[in-house]
Amino acid sequence: MNKLLGRAAELLQRRKETKYKQVILVRDDLKLPKGKLAAQVAHASVETVMKADQGVVQKWRAEGMMKIVLKVKDEKELLNLHHQADYHGLTSALITDAGHTVVEPGTITVCGIGPALVSRIDEVTGHLQLL
Amino acid sequence: MNKLLGRAAELLQRRKETKYKQVILVRDDLKLPKGKLAAQVAHASVETVMKADQGVVQKWRAEGMMKIVLKVKDEKELLNLHHQADYHGLTSALITDAGHTVVEPGTITVCGIGPALVSRIDEVTGHLQLL
Repeated sequence: MNKLLGRAAELLQRRKETKYKQVILVRDDLKLPKGKLAAQVAHASVETVMKADQGVVQKWRAEGMMKIVLKVKDEKELLNLHHQADYHGLTSALITDAGHTVVEPGTITVCGIGPALVSRIDEVTGHLQLL
Repeated sequence: MNKLLGRAAELLQRRKETKYKQVILVRDDLKLPKGKLAAQVAHASVETVMKADQGVVQKWRAEGMMKIVLKVKDEKELLNLHHQADYHGLTSALITDAGHTVVEPGTITVCGIGPALVSRIDEVTGHLQLL
């Protein structure tokens, strides 16, 4: 718990110095094993980077590519936030797992949003907690 | 354990149908919390994608962007494999964490390799286990 608070403080500090970020939303209900989870998060990160405005991507990269992994309760909340991101004009990508072992094929696991201005992303995901 | 064997079988099956992959090597000794770990893996994934041959990146993306997260024992093994990847002409990127809470600032956490042909990556990392 102390570690989580420390990470939150670190992120708050970095947020003040950072203009751009990317967030990746993870379904907490799936309880993915950490290797699988990391691969899905990376999938979402790369996919949204490829879809995003490349000028913004370069600015974000120059700043250190801030990425924040946040948790959502379930598929319903994930889809809702994906639609909200679209509505706010933010690049986002839902990732569906093709695997057959850890989760059912076709399970929507994570959603990447951005990179975009921190303030614009916070309008949609500012209320979520760190994974 | 059954889940891990299942995942290994799934990956073996996909490997037969897949020409390109990316691997991300994770230091098992750091025991990073899952959110931090996922962000570091995503960092390595994006960084190597940006450094890699973009023609290969497009082929890899068209195939479904196979990403495998593997574990290494410690920093020494990570650095050794990074150098071996370089020696074999594979794009790779070491990621250093700038944080101040979970690990010491400047700690090398993960290493991305590829995307590249599966056979070329396996020459360097084929002996490693899934995280």
